[in-house]
Amino acid sequence: MELAKIDKLVCSWMQRAREIILTGMQCTLTVTTKTSRNDLVTNMDRQVEQFYHQQIKEAFPASVILGEEAKHHPARVPEQGMLWVVDPIDGTMNFVRQQTDFATMIALFINGQLVRGYILDVPRNELFWGGPGEAVHRNKQQLASPANVALKDGLVQVSNRFILNDYAHSKAIINASSGLRVFGSAGISFIHLLTGRCVLYMAKLKPWDFLPGVALAMGADLQVGVLANRPTKLEATSLAVTTPAAWPEIQQIMDGE
Amino acid sequence: MELAKIDKLVCSWMQRAREIILTGMQCTLTVTTKTSRNDLVTNMDRQVEQFYHQQIKEAFPASVILGEEAKHHPARVPEQGMLWVVDPIDGTMNFVRQQTDFATMIALFINGQLVRGYILDVPRNELFWGGPGEAVHRNKQQLASPANVALKDGLVQVSNRFILNDYAHSKAIINASSGLRVFGSAGISFIHLLTGRCVLYMAKLKPWDFLPGVALAMGADLQVGVLANRPTKLEATSLAVTTPAAWPEIQQIMDGE
Repeated sequence: MELAKIDKLVCSWMQRAREIILTGMQCTLTVTTKTSRNDLVTNMDRQVEQFYHQQIKEAFPASVILGEEAKHHPARVPEQGMLWVVDPIDGTMNFVRQQTDFATMIALFINGQLVRGYILDVPRNELFWGGPGEAVHRNKQQLASPANVALKDGLVQVSNRFILNDYAHSKAIINASSGLRVFGSAGISFIHLLTGRCVLYMAKLKPWDFLPGVALAMGADLQVGVLANRPTKLEATSLAVTTPAAWPEIQQIMDGE
Repeated sequence: MELAKIDKLVCSWMQRAREIILTGMQCTLTVTTKTSRNDLVTNMDRQVEQFYHQQIKEAFPASVILGEEAKHHPARVPEQGMLWVVDPIDGTMNFVRQQTDFATMIALFINGQLVRGYILDVPRNELFWGGPGEAVHRNKQQLASPANVALKDGLVQVSNRFILNDYAHSKAIINASSGLRVFGSAGISFIHLLTGRCVLYMAKLKPWDFLPGVALAMGADLQVGVLANRPTKLEATSLAVTTPAAWPEIQQIMDGE
């Protein structure tokens, strides 16, 4: 199947997932914790992941699927065929506590190559899709690449854990910028980069958290800096995604120069 | 004039201010810095402040006005008559860089008492108004007081400067919570408290930044903790505004116990 047809299909799945989530929000959520008291999962995460699983297996039966809520995770990107990376609800804490600033996300590898990212901001109904060699779209509208803004003129997004431990000299990076913003969802943070509202997003993220955004960032001519680990190994990775103009300055600060 | 009539009048001014801002956003903004490179002011801030000034002087000629962009500021709350505190655009950095998450705000003192706060989220067109003894409204709908959530079960909002300098043990407070969020606008941060999306907002703020939100917080049965300075003295003040349930725990952490 051509990629353009896949795009259409995936966008239609995500719109249906959005309806499932919005309907589910009218009912009482079942919230449980996973690895820690602030790592939440709801019945909606599981239901939406199952929905994506069914759609993918029906349309592309030979696919491998890496889902946030699945019990077994493939360890590597397969060299042949399709790998789907699914995050049914990104920003579950916001979903539960704020009912805003959360997303549903999918990334697609074909024959070992990351080709597409899809992030749907559920409350605002804005679906960002694209990838390496395919400009980013917001719903049906093609977006220009974000302005190539320097660090001092841009807002930066840094995760809780990086700030509190001053990882990668994050305090100095914040001080050199226009200011800090923290939204609590990787998908929403990537959207702020794609729309030019921020110049940096820096965090340690799971594959389902960063792969959709990384595919889109590549389509938007942003710089994807990997701070640790190897992203082909489908494991948690520390990333700094920035405008090309901000990246050399951020690297200098990280190197302590 | 009765307070109910004043509410109606002020809400109509703010709707007109919103139209001025949205129209101005279609044109090129003139952006200049004030006290530092990250303290911005635009032609729209000045134009909207002037608009409020005219409306207030026409309706209530004996009023004293404290405006963010005015050259002369009254030092104290007058014991008699009306004091209007005006923030034409709160979150000017977001206004310039993000075109979202900014507000226009007004607070009103009568005979030395803070009686009303008004915060209009301009892009979302949600106007929050109320004060001590008057329940908070969102547009025409009266809001219930936010759920009285404990610190561990809530998201916290802490300013850049508090986090980076660990003022008031803010790192320990963040670690004891569900997570950190930073939106970069006092008005938007107060709205997140009023709607129960967050349990704390902690920052050092100018009078025009905190007085509208403090009036609303009092109407919503939230706890307003003053960490330093005296708010009647119309000067920058460090505040922690929280749910009543979270406040004792936050105080304990601040006291280093």
